[in-house]
Amino acid sequence: MQLTVYLAGQIHDDWRRDIKSKADEKQLPVTFVSPQENHALSDDIGEKILGDQPGQVERDDAASSINNFRTKILLNKSDAAIAYFGESYKQWNTAMDAGAAIQAGKPLILIRPESLVHPLKELSNQADVTVETIEQAVEVLAYLYE
Amino acid sequence: MQLTVYLAGQIHDDWRRDIKSKADEKQLPVTFVSPQENHALSDDIGEKILGDQPGQVERDDAASSINNFRTKILLNKSDAAIAYFGESYKQWNTAMDAGAAIQAGKPLILIRPESLVHPLKELSNQADVTVETIEQAVEVLAYLYE
Amino acid sequence: MQLTVYLAGQIHDDWRRDIKSKADEKQLPVTFVSPQENHALSDDIGEKILGDQPGQVERDDAASSINNFRTKILLNKSDAAIAYFGESYKQWNTAMDAGAAIQAGKPLILIRPESLVHPLKELSNQADVTVETIEQAVEVLAYLYE
Amino acid sequence: MQLTVYLAGQIHDDWRRDIKSKADEKQLPVTFVSPQENHALSDDIGEKILGDQPGQVERDDAASSINNFRTKILLNKSDAAIAYFGESYKQWNTAMDAGAAIQAGKPLILIRPESLVHPLKELSNQADVTVETIEQAVEVLAYLYE
Amino acid sequence: MQLTVYLAGQIHDDWRRDIKSKADEKQLPVTFVSPQENHALSDDIGEKILGDQPGQVERDDAASSINNFRTKILLNKSDAAIAYFGESYKQWNTAMDAGAAIQAGKPLILIRPESLVHPLKELSNQADVTVETIEQAVEVLAYLYE
Amino acid sequence: MQLTVYLAGQIHDDWRRDIKSKADEKQLPVTFVSPQENHALSDDIGEKILGDQPGQVERDDAASSINNFRTKILLNKSDAAIAYFGESYKQWNTAMDAGAAIQAGKPLILIRPESLVHPLKELSNQADVTVETIEQAVEVLAYLYE
Amino acid sequence: MQLTVYLAGQIHDDWRRDIKSKADEKQLPVTFVSPQENHALSDDIGEKILGDQPGQVERDDAASSINNFRTKILLNKSDAAIAYFGESYKQWNTAMDAGAAIQAGKPLILIRPESLVHPLKELSNQADVTVETIEQAVEVLAYLYE
Amino acid sequence: MQLTVYLAGQIHDDWRRDIKSKADEKQLPVTFVSPQENHALSDDIGEKILGDQPGQVERDDAASSINNFRTKILLNKSDAAIAYFGESYKQWNTAMDAGAAIQAGKPLILIRPESLVHPLKELSNQADVTVETIEQAVEVLAYLYE
Repeated sequence: MQLTVYLAGQIHDDWRRDIKSKADEKQLPVTFVSPQENHALSDDIGEKILGDQPGQVERDDAASSINNFRTKILLNKSDAAIAYFGESYKQWNTAMDAGAAIQAGKPLILIRPESLVHPLKELSNQADVTVETIEQAVEVLAYLYE
Repeated sequence: MQLTVYLAGQIHDDWRRDIKSKADEKQLPVTFVSPQENHALSDDIGEKILGDQPGQVERDDAASSINNFRTKILLNKSDAAIAYFGESYKQWNTAMDAGAAIQAGKPLILIRPESLVHPLKELSNQADVTVETIEQAVEVLAYLYE
Repeated sequence: MQLTVYLAGQIHDDWRRDIKSKADEKQLPVTFVSPQENHALSDDIGEKILGDQPGQVERDDAASSINNFRTKILLNKSDAAIAYFGESYKQWNTAMDAGAAIQAGKPLILIRPESLVHPLKELSNQADVTVETIEQAVEVLAYLYE
Repeated sequence: MQLTVYLAGQIHDDWRRDIKSKADEKQLPVTFVSPQENHALSDDIGEKILGDQPGQVERDDAASSINNFRTKILLNKSDAAIAYFGESYKQWNTAMDAGAAIQAGKPLILIRPESLVHPLKELSNQADVTVETIEQAVEVLAYLYE
Repeated sequence: MQLTVYLAGQIHDDWRRDIKSKADEKQLPVTFVSPQENHALSDDIGEKILGDQPGQVERDDAASSINNFRTKILLNKSDAAIAYFGESYKQWNTAMDAGAAIQAGKPLILIRPESLVHPLKELSNQADVTVETIEQAVEVLAYLYE
Repeated sequence: MQLTVYLAGQIHDDWRRDIKSKADEKQLPVTFVSPQENHALSDDIGEKILGDQPGQVERDDAASSINNFRTKILLNKSDAAIAYFGESYKQWNTAMDAGAAIQAGKPLILIRPESLVHPLKELSNQADVTVETIEQAVEVLAYLYE
Repeated sequence: MQLTVYLAGQIHDDWRRDIKSKADEKQLPVTFVSPQENHALSDDIGEKILGDQPGQVERDDAASSINNFRTKILLNKSDAAIAYFGESYKQWNTAMDAGAAIQAGKPLILIRPESLVHPLKELSNQADVTVETIEQAVEVLAYLYE
Repeated sequence: MQLTVYLAGQIHDDWRRDIKSKADEKQLPVTFVSPQENHALSDDIGEKILGDQPGQVERDDAASSINNFRTKILLNKSDAAIAYFGESYKQWNTAMDAGAAIQAGKPLILIRPESLVHPLKELSNQADVTVETIEQAVEVLAYLYE
């Protein structure tokens, strides 16, 4: 059974490559989709397509409209989602995507370090599974096929 | 027309009292509901009802299960939501509640300071209205009755 | 049985007053809700609440975000909708609101003059009832109580 | 990831061919679907299948019932929609389709010239992305695959 | 607990009065709603509101559009439905309303005589409760309050 | 675009074969699904699988439970439905299936002879398209691919 | 805020009276609804309304159809549910009602003794809150109003 | 037509192998999915992935979170479900899965021995089909293709 899994989370480092390579090792028939992982492109895409904007607010709004269009389509096509939190960055998009996935009935795995247990307690409690490492998340996916 | 509005956001200061008193001044027929605003109670409620837990993770999970039960009922009963972000705190529950409200088709007002334009750009773009102050949010509610 | 009916349509003349007074004459227990009928306010509301905007596009977007927030709440609360088309104005909001009402399963009355039969044929075919005058629309509402 | 995109808009010129050829150039795996683009056929289809009708109203209603059956199936099958507005024609079907797409949770790109900013401000604010040219719309689609 | 129950079925005799009086005797807090019970009015309502139509097909379509608008609102407002079948009349509206109620998740009571067991077997199997008499249907409603 | 169409209607003659062969002639990529067309099997299937039943009512209920299980799965998988009415038979399953299809948002073609215009007026008004012959219904399907 | 809570669970002893009296002591504005608590009536209701049935299977099916009609209406009207498990009885209705409540997005409290932790682990994990005593469940309800 | 069927029920013996081999004999194009059938793995999976837990409650909760994640995805992907009850084991997951399937509109076959008619009467009445043996359930599936 081929599944599609949306990877919510920051786009500052390449944690998604780690998930993908671990899933490949296990030969899981899972297609991963994500928000735009090229951070500069994700910030520039509004002006790149729509041209110069009058200010930073408008520049950001133009980019985010295109990012949201992308995310919405990909989340709609997914069978499950993984939300990854680390100790850096605000990660509000991650939390918003997680809230949307839960509300839409998409099963959700939360990955978060032990240090974030307290601030993520409500999100963890609503997620279907909470793990601490990428490896554990991939083991949960592998369990779908056992 | 009587409306119910859910106030998502941190519970460290009393910004909700501000919204309520401004709405009262304008005599808006709006009932406001919120996550538990008593921070200590919100953290303790798990052990208070369920008894001592084996560790901090379990203590947090017990509390959050009861907080989530409360939030879910109140958000279900609401006609709209307001998500308030400030410069302090992680505010992941705020972003998760906002994501859930958007996905559930509940119209959403985002309040955020100018300094947070960039990190909240995707959430702002998905919200129905974005404002910078509590006063502006109440003016948007007042406009419903004009 | 008390019902709420959303009145989609242009806000350049006071056709809604006509509907309301005819419904009052028949003592129908119907509450009518509408987009903002004060045209100037509807155009100014963005800058009025959010302050000066960098240009006309941003001014319009600010106003429309607040108008849409209002409309979405009111349409959600309605049991049925009436969409009124005349020979003047572009009336794209009317058509968009009608499309949204149909998709949301809200029964819809379309009012349009004979001269618009052809350009409104697909919308008319999707509406539950098509009439030519305000009086006829109110007679359809009255029939709910016969 | 293969996607299906519905192209709402007038059927008087061949703007859809332009979108399709630009998407082909970029080798996007997108299937485009549309309302009936043969205008004469779209007007005649009622009488063509159902035989002569008693008058123009009935002729139009017969045609539109078959056009709507077609549109409803194609929009149901789509992952996203594009609504194209120009300076000519009433384009009420475009606005109605856009309203339906938004209400059904289908991500929407609005294409409209600068001259229509004001009359389309509410629709633009509800769309996921607003652009001015066909080329920009195709760039947004291409961004899904970057 | 106040409930609203939709009474689907033919409008040639006054079986609904029977249900209402039996429910009144038991003082059940139930509001009953129905399609238009005045048969002549139900057939004439199209031309009465919309004026003379070019033929019988159009006359019937005009009337049915207004009857359907009425039915859709009332079924939406109902907590449950009763579908009544007898040995006379085609009763296709009754079967269509029953199918719609089941699909919409509205609990359904079917009333049908023993002679119709075979032709109504699929509908009976999908209904929540099947009874043979009006009295039995009212006893089922009364059981809600025991 | 491959589509699946559910064929609601009586199972006493082979009108479905007619639809299928006409669709084959036009090489339409449509898969047709139907209730059980073998009438005897459709009546016997309960006792055939579940063994002898205590009486006719139970025999019919057993058969219909299995027929409904089948129909529900097939209607869920369909993109559109066709409901065929003729002058013979009660055809309540046809009307019930049509009501369910409409409520589920499945586009619906109604085929009925001119003699049934009046008794089917409400169903016809709710269907997306009404035609008089099987040939016309297939032409409507063919129009999806023009 | 007035709330309605459905009390799923066995009907062999009067645990519901306990919940109600504890909620009364705290003056909670909660209306409790339940399956039929009179066990004999719940078993007899089929034959009581529909007359003698040919056997035990049919007697049980008749009763359960009326019990399910009742339960479905009451669960639809509820804002939340409580599922109570004890060490006696099969309690399959309790588990089925819990599954339905979760799937319908109704927040759920599970009450179960420590001895049932293992067999109820999947249900507990899907419930919003799990407690061991009736008193704790009422404290969770009370927390909604703090 | 390829279908996916979820097999709810205990995992203590290999009744699912029986269903699969009987379906294979009939060459039914059905893919069967199930909760984790390896009982020890199903109990251990929490600690296996997440590491040692502080106690039995936490060990069970960890395992069930991963089992539920699996089940939710598989039930979402299914076109129908089969719930199998025997005379041993508590089988509360079976009843919960059945309740969820019914609420989600997935057609359901219940398999239960005659001895369980009474305690399963409400579940049986809500299922689409009730049978006594695995063979009968497979015959119902085969009927989909006749």
